[in-house]
Amino acid sequence: MSVQNVLVAGAWRESRSGKSFAAENPRTCQAFDETYPVSDWADCDEALDAAVAAAAELRRLPRASLARFLEAFADRIEARSGEICAMAHAETALPLSPRLADVELPRTTAQLRAAAVAARDGSWATATIDTAAGIRSCFVPIGPVCVFGPNNFPLAFNSASGGDFAAAIAAGNPVIAKANSSHPATTRLLAEAAHGAVVDSKMPAATVQLIYRTSHEDGERLVADPRMGATGYTGSRSAGLKLKAAADRAGKPIYLELSSINPVVFLAGALDERFDAVVDEYAGSCLMGTGQFCTNPGLALFVDADAGHRFVAAVAERFRQAPIGTLLSSGVQSQLQTNLETLIRAGAEVVAQGGSGGDGYHHANTLLSVDAARFLQCPEVFQTEVFGNVALAVIAGSVDEAAQVLRALEGNLTGCIYSHTGGADDVVYDRLAPLLAERVGRLLNDKMPTGVAVSAAMNHGGPFPATGHPGFTAVGIPAALRRFARLLCYDNVRTSRLPDLLANRNPTGNTWRLIDGQWSQSDVG
Amino acid sequence: MSVQNVLVAGAWRESRSGKSFAAENPRTCQAFDETYPVSDWADCDEALDAAVAAAAELRRLPRASLARFLEAFADRIEARSGEICAMAHAETALPLSPRLADVELPRTTAQLRAAAVAARDGSWATATIDTAAGIRSCFVPIGPVCVFGPNNFPLAFNSASGGDFAAAIAAGNPVIAKANSSHPATTRLLAEAAHGAVVDSKMPAATVQLIYRTSHEDGERLVADPRMGATGYTGSRSAGLKLKAAADRAGKPIYLELSSINPVVFLAGALDERFDAVVDEYAGSCLMGTGQFCTNPGLALFVDADAGHRFVAAVAERFRQAPIGTLLSSGVQSQLQTNLETLIRAGAEVVAQGGSGGDGYHHANTLLSVDAARFLQCPEVFQTEVFGNVALAVIAGSVDEAAQVLRALEGNLTGCIYSHTGGADDVVYDRLAPLLAERVGRLLNDKMPTGVAVSAAMNHGGPFPATGHPGFTAVGIPAALRRFARLLCYDNVRTSRLPDLLANRNPTGNTWRLIDGQWSQSDVG
Repeated sequence: MSVQNVLVAGAWRESRSGKSFAAENPRTCQAFDETYPVSDWADCDEALDAAVAAAAELRRLPRASLARFLEAFADRIEARSGEICAMAHAETALPLSPRLADVELPRTTAQLRAAAVAARDGSWATATIDTAAGIRSCFVPIGPVCVFGPNNFPLAFNSASGGDFAAAIAAGNPVIAKANSSHPATTRLLAEAAHGAVVDSKMPAATVQLIYRTSHEDGERLVADPRMGATGYTGSRSAGLKLKAAADRAGKPIYLELSSINPVVFLAGALDERFDAVVDEYAGSCLMGTGQFCTNPGLALFVDADAGHRFVAAVAERFRQAPIGTLLSSGVQSQLQTNLETLIRAGAEVVAQGGSGGDGYHHANTLLSVDAARFLQCPEVFQTEVFGNVALAVIAGSVDEAAQVLRALEGNLTGCIYSHTGGADDVVYDRLAPLLAERVGRLLNDKMPTGVAVSAAMNHGGPFPATGHPGFTAVGIPAALRRFARLLCYDNVRTSRLPDLLANRNPTGNTWRLIDGQWSQSDVG
Repeated sequence: MSVQNVLVAGAWRESRSGKSFAAENPRTCQAFDETYPVSDWADCDEALDAAVAAAAELRRLPRASLARFLEAFADRIEARSGEICAMAHAETALPLSPRLADVELPRTTAQLRAAAVAARDGSWATATIDTAAGIRSCFVPIGPVCVFGPNNFPLAFNSASGGDFAAAIAAGNPVIAKANSSHPATTRLLAEAAHGAVVDSKMPAATVQLIYRTSHEDGERLVADPRMGATGYTGSRSAGLKLKAAADRAGKPIYLELSSINPVVFLAGALDERFDAVVDEYAGSCLMGTGQFCTNPGLALFVDADAGHRFVAAVAERFRQAPIGTLLSSGVQSQLQTNLETLIRAGAEVVAQGGSGGDGYHHANTLLSVDAARFLQCPEVFQTEVFGNVALAVIAGSVDEAAQVLRALEGNLTGCIYSHTGGADDVVYDRLAPLLAERVGRLLNDKMPTGVAVSAAMNHGGPFPATGHPGFTAVGIPAALRRFARLLCYDNVRTSRLPDLLANRNPTGNTWRLIDGQWSQSDVG
């Protein structure tokens, strides 16, 4: 078998390294025939040089060309959707339907098209004009962006087509996509579509580049390279923190989405009022996608022991009856086992371990329980993320004790509170919600966190270690674009030399700009 | 002599450490009689606990109370302005007038009042409402903020009254001010005014706290503490990078303003057109405040050797004739000498070293010159910041060579280009401006960088190592507030539980919110 090519400087070519790897089919546990290159520094170096040249070219192009590229790319993904989804299914074992074909692929193309709208419009750049002082500023592209995609969304968070990719391009930057090693073929197909769109829409050749794998050292060197603008990373905490350390030392922005156990607090009134419905919602959310969501509700907290135990027993029953899904990879399976053992060793009790079927890499649906007193003895350990179909219930004996648990939580992407619709829980809600809100990027009421709407108001972010900075979101346009931008001020710069976003005339007729303190779609003056 | 008190948890009390230090009068080189405490971890720990409690209280107060506090503080500064400016003059040797009394103090109170307006209005929080999805988000306070102020703006960037302080408070956070060790008494007076305003306006006791000095270890521990929300630092690169490393490891945001040499490019046409005026402007900007501005134009670049040499000769004459200012401290003087020697050892030629007078800590006004070829042999060394009344001219022989110099520049706060007003330099400008713009946070035309207007459109920021992140500004309201905030999303949260910024009703009647993609001052629906 010949090794697949990397996409560097506009050309599909062999990697310089000669090394390669193969992904596995998680359902058969067999390696695929196709092998993919491990890039050494020569590939990274060449990609960086090409990206710098592309970044300079992109700055000279009208924003509308970014939009046309993103739309052409979305069209090409749709034209090959059958092949792309089949490949993603083979590489990840995620269901074709309902999931890849009818949820994730449409989400991917919708994100690209929404990013196109934002790019064309330019309001994301927060053009700010002070006419009296002669000072104007806006966000401008940050430079080449490297995207490391996660294993669990082979399309919508893919490094060559996902949210970070779309945001980086819409903000005007070239992307070096680092494929997730568990789905290289899906990434190749997406990058082929992207490259086709680059050619069609006459974008700079290195607008999109693709490498599949590097050594840890080269990865750290890449994110810290002087030519790099910024990095977007979604994945494991350990790998992410190594990249963060390297980027931080070099003063290079890196946006990370790391671990999150997404606490859900069940107040007594909600369980009194709608016990079965909430059990169903929770169990469904825990096992959806075999629990392999960044927003999977990994920790349930109860403020009343009796109700908590009844709830746990009912969820245990659902876990035992539910089918066992396939995990994304052998790595996910072994990490799940390791982290599960950590929780059990710390004193978590196994309430349910079961389910029906189970192909390839898999693990029984597992529900654990621990009382809050025990949890509070080693809260860091009990917050170990078990990525997969495992959930931990923490049973507090009182609202006070639940408050202590919340105070001991690390940063998370989301936090939910289920409460009585008639107001019976309002006093407890008012006490606990501020504690939870302090530790999360998104606070939900009466709703599981596993859906992440692509909305301008979404925050898919949160305090460390859920992400690297609590002021940025990975989902939501236009806010997500601002990660890949820097602020540039024009002071006393002659009118004819200003970028169109800062000219007196509104560049599109409806771009929002902050003119002398007022948001406006008008021309200046 | 008794040691002054720290301000912790609302009380002026002795430091736990028993250690102390005294600042020096830079004009007499004598230590002041008054001694100030060196805090050990006990002070920091107590301040952090108090700040956490204050942060929780502040979140429950209406935003208008933040505004009232900031305004009361500004009033109290004005009431003691004579004493404050006299003390700042004694501690820094900066002129009382024109500078401390009539520029910096009014700027300080104006910043506090502008921050009050922003706090009351709430538009800074970018409230974003998606009515269809039921998702609403806005920026919320990040938690306790530690501010490390610089030596060169004892009022307007003071840790207890300056831009970072005002932004952190206006965003809703308590501040732990770490005084700059070169002006502790000025900082004490400002903190007394702040504390008086805290009491008057019934704010939480620990809204403003003050410590004067810590060990490096305790400083690093402070910015990385789990209780800390974020840190604002303005000062030397070496100390800043140590704090950054500590904060980064802990995942704590830190906003740094480090070194900057603020390149100014003089195009041939501008010198032909208005040689003397530009010489005066440049020499004045170089020596203003004895060169001790973060935006001091430390590097002048010429694209034509003959014109460059003529310009340098004329500036040299101004340097020799100008009075020699007093430097801020012995540390500034010794660092200046060290860094100047570095430039000379690397091959910079001393063109002028002179001036009239000179009290206390001082150094002759010094102009250096190097040709671009030599500069390009070791560009990092030639970008050593010499904080003070020293400037380096880099003489290129061609536009190509000047472009190479620009490509070799690190990140800076500002970059200027002087060009012919009639358009004679436009071709060269179009070639060089993009290279310069890539490396700076603020691009100026025909204007020296030393003025930093407090404007919504200002960017006092820039690529590393000028700052720690190129997306944030330390000056400019409301943008500066966003550094001390985190994004929080409310998903499906019941209407009655939303913060007022996200309620259906516009909280002030004129707060700007992004409702369903349109900026609006209206109510929802």
